[in-house]
Amino acid sequence: MKVIVSKRAGFCFGVRRAIKMSRETLGKSKKDIDLSVYTLGPLVHNPDVIQQLEKEGIFSIDAASSIKKGYLVIRTHGTAPKIYKEALKRKLKVIDATCPLVRKIHDIVRDLTSNGYKIIIIGHKDHPEVKGIAAYASSGCKVIESVDEAKKFAKEKKITDKLGIVVQTTFMLDNFRAIIPMLIDKAQECRIFNTICSETKLRQAETLELAKKVDIMIVVGGKDSSNTRRLFEICKKCCPSTYLVEGAKHIKADWFRGKKTAGLTAGASTPDWVIEEIVRKIRGLGTGS
Amino acid sequence: MKVIVSKRAGFCFGVRRAIKMSRETLGKSKKDIDLSVYTLGPLVHNPDVIQQLEKEGIFSIDAASSIKKGYLVIRTHGTAPKIYKEALKRKLKVIDATCPLVRKIHDIVRDLTSNGYKIIIIGHKDHPEVKGIAAYASSGCKVIESVDEAKKFAKEKKITDKLGIVVQTTFMLDNFRAIIPMLIDKAQECRIFNTICSETKLRQAETLELAKKVDIMIVVGGKDSSNTRRLFEICKKCCPSTYLVEGAKHIKADWFRGKKTAGLTAGASTPDWVIEEIVRKIRGLGTGS
Repeated sequence: MKVIVSKRAGFCFGVRRAIKMSRETLGKSKKDIDLSVYTLGPLVHNPDVIQQLEKEGIFSIDAASSIKKGYLVIRTHGTAPKIYKEALKRKLKVIDATCPLVRKIHDIVRDLTSNGYKIIIIGHKDHPEVKGIAAYASSGCKVIESVDEAKKFAKEKKITDKLGIVVQTTFMLDNFRAIIPMLIDKAQECRIFNTICSETKLRQAETLELAKKVDIMIVVGGKDSSNTRRLFEICKKCCPSTYLVEGAKHIKADWFRGKKTAGLTAGASTPDWVIEEIVRKIRGLGTGS
Repeated sequence: MKVIVSKRAGFCFGVRRAIKMSRETLGKSKKDIDLSVYTLGPLVHNPDVIQQLEKEGIFSIDAASSIKKGYLVIRTHGTAPKIYKEALKRKLKVIDATCPLVRKIHDIVRDLTSNGYKIIIIGHKDHPEVKGIAAYASSGCKVIESVDEAKKFAKEKKITDKLGIVVQTTFMLDNFRAIIPMLIDKAQECRIFNTICSETKLRQAETLELAKKVDIMIVVGGKDSSNTRRLFEICKKCCPSTYLVEGAKHIKADWFRGKKTAGLTAGASTPDWVIEEIVRKIRGLGTGS
């Protein structure tokens, strides 16, 4: 079985940076007695990586309140300002590994809010990145996650002076493009910040090209990873035999029967060694034809 | 023949205001010896109105340089700042009847330019309003008039930091909506001002509803009038028997054969008396069936 791996598969810049920062903190913590390293939520949406980090001594916790002391790493998604404040108040040592692109969105939203813009976040309501961004819109905001929701919003009679619009870093560009025209008639001025991460955009574009020319597509990534789900949706449209897996153990030989070429892409939270393991496994499969 | 006239047919607020200002100036000029009233370009795109104004003593000229003294009325479309300056330098008495909505676009473009935004005007290159707006973009601008042009622009590799986007007051909302998604990926920030005149929007929406329910649509207006052409395009899509006329003399009885209900709309430069004359003429026609 021939396997083609998409150029931009796996860890993105922000995730590499967050893991590096966590490991550096771990190095520092070893000098301090009794200070462990905790991440607020899993650092990446990948159980294997989380397990590896736990072995090293970096633990994921759900809330800052569950620890009394130690280093608290804010993951790439960022978080609400009040979480920082509370952690600092409780004397935790906060390490901010918020992706710089997400941090930029926080700054944009804060600026827009203080200049009287009503905020719209185009993104997925339940995603931690979106929740974090929303927390910076101190006068409130509206989250729109689909064309249907945008249509509903467009039908509301309310028109405002100034709308400030940002978009989740891993949102699909085509959906962003489809939503915007429905918003521009809702205000005299729409100030739109295209905050989709360029790495995400390139990854999506490359994945689409790859999916068009192979018989089967394997998308690697956590089931909770927003950017991985986007990749899956993109592939599924032009390659019906698309499968989402978290690791090599989920690969089933059956899928590859009668196929000649497999494509592989991976979400931003997939480490290189997981990709390599899967590639080896697929290469070992015959075409079965 | 039954005739339904669209509610918002004819002179818009800006045109009424410009004609009123010209006539008031005429009143003033009569007190001054040897000072006539001139408009820089026809005040409205309607030969009958222009003829009427000439009879009253208000003359249309192509360039300020063609007169040595007198009152110079700037029409609703507005004009370039250098035209004002030259006219004032030459001691002409300038009366600014630029539509306040167009004046607002001038201010927006000037502000955006001085804040480092690259300017895009969505509108028709040859229209005097667009030429006037462009003159306020002192660092240059790009005019985009169609979806095809926007597509070409989107394919250019150049990406800028900040785009400031305005739209010609009489541009079609649906085309504006179709163009915007192609621009949002060309800059980190797109500051979009929806400067389509709300009267134009309502007129277009009402015209569309009317065209859907009649057998024949008559669009009244000058052949050079941008907003009239938009009305014609809107009607033609859902009512194949759509005709553009400048006055009652262009109405042909043939068109109405076998039709029961006629709809009538008119561009912003059509006076009420022209509409009334046409309605009388159509009512006088039988269905001819």
